[in-house]
Amino acid sequence: MKVVVISVAGGSGSGKTTVVDKIIKSFKKREVRVLRLDDYYKYSPLPFEERIKINYDHPQSLDFDLFVEQIHELCDGKAIEKPLYDYIDHQRKTETEEIEPSKILILEGILVMSDERVRNLSDIKVYVDTDADLRFIRRMLRDTKERGRSVDSVVNQYLKTVKPMHEAFVEPTKKYADIIIPNDYSHDVAVNMMIAKIHEILEDKNQ
Amino acid sequence: MKVVVISVAGGSGSGKTTVVDKIIKSFKKREVRVLRLDDYYKYSPLPFEERIKINYDHPQSLDFDLFVEQIHELCDGKAIEKPLYDYIDHQRKTETEEIEPSKILILEGILVMSDERVRNLSDIKVYVDTDADLRFIRRMLRDTKERGRSVDSVVNQYLKTVKPMHEAFVEPTKKYADIIIPNDYSHDVAVNMMIAKIHEILEDKNQ
Repeated sequence: MKVVVISVAGGSGSGKTTVVDKIIKSFKKREVRVLRLDDYYKYSPLPFEERIKINYDHPQSLDFDLFVEQIHELCDGKAIEKPLYDYIDHQRKTETEEIEPSKILILEGILVMSDERVRNLSDIKVYVDTDADLRFIRRMLRDTKERGRSVDSVVNQYLKTVKPMHEAFVEPTKKYADIIIPNDYSHDVAVNMMIAKIHEILEDKNQ
Repeated sequence: MKVVVISVAGGSGSGKTTVVDKIIKSFKKREVRVLRLDDYYKYSPLPFEERIKINYDHPQSLDFDLFVEQIHELCDGKAIEKPLYDYIDHQRKTETEEIEPSKILILEGILVMSDERVRNLSDIKVYVDTDADLRFIRRMLRDTKERGRSVDSVVNQYLKTVKPMHEAFVEPTKKYADIIIPNDYSHDVAVNMMIAKIHEILEDKNQ
């Protein structure tokens, strides 16, 4: 059995998770696994005071080697020990989470298409595209309401790292996408097209 | 039998025709018909000297009422008499072309998604997106090599009407698309997804 690999990229607040959730709901639970690139922040040997200064929106803060290795393992039908990340301590946790292989593997993350190896492993590459103002608004509402942060701190981080890193590393990967989903209206037709294609690949691959 | 309607929009030189041709090749010849919006330039009562001054990149130069009416007729299983346009005389021809109804109807044109009625009639709306410089280069090479025009005349028309009309009327319709196909690399995966979805709609609709 060959695994269907789908990459879902797009800026912070673009609506990637909504797209991923809709795909998941169209298949049986055990048929789909999602690897979120956010779990693959590198282990840092630096003390906490230094760790909080790391630019987490830069591709170098991510462990793409481990990410690619674990995609390969899942594609080979092997279970993996997925890393977990502690966002309060800004450090990789010591415990891991076992992920079983599945027929469909979704790779989700802002920078998921910035690594050539990940692109080459993907059967379908999708970029969820949303206007920058809407992305900022969603991020601000989430961070102030759910994460207790001040508007000033959200704005500062946005202008200092999120926006420049988006323009330098996220936006340019749009060109690698097989399809871009504009997130202004409904994206049901786009998601349905992806699901139709996944079904087709599954039938072809398992013949 | 309900017809599957697919709109393919995108700027001049974006590669719409390549996408349309790939869809056509995946079905039997009698299953697919293409309506090109370019055939629906309005009949003009003006003399030739005035007709050549018309802004053909503006939506008002197109007969959307007839276009929508004929889409409805084809969807109702009726044949239509499609208008033909004389690009040298800048006038609608007196003769027409009979188009038989088909299972799949593709609507192709720069401004095809600018009319709300056309959008509402479409099962799948696609926008082929290509960088403006590449679109200009393609247009220039086509118009100088195939249509015997000078570089100066192509540049003048591009700056005077094509570019401003693109920005005013074509680019804004990108937001209505179900999917945007970036045309920088291969668009095979995107086209295959559309084909998979068309097959699925055909099966659903004809049950």
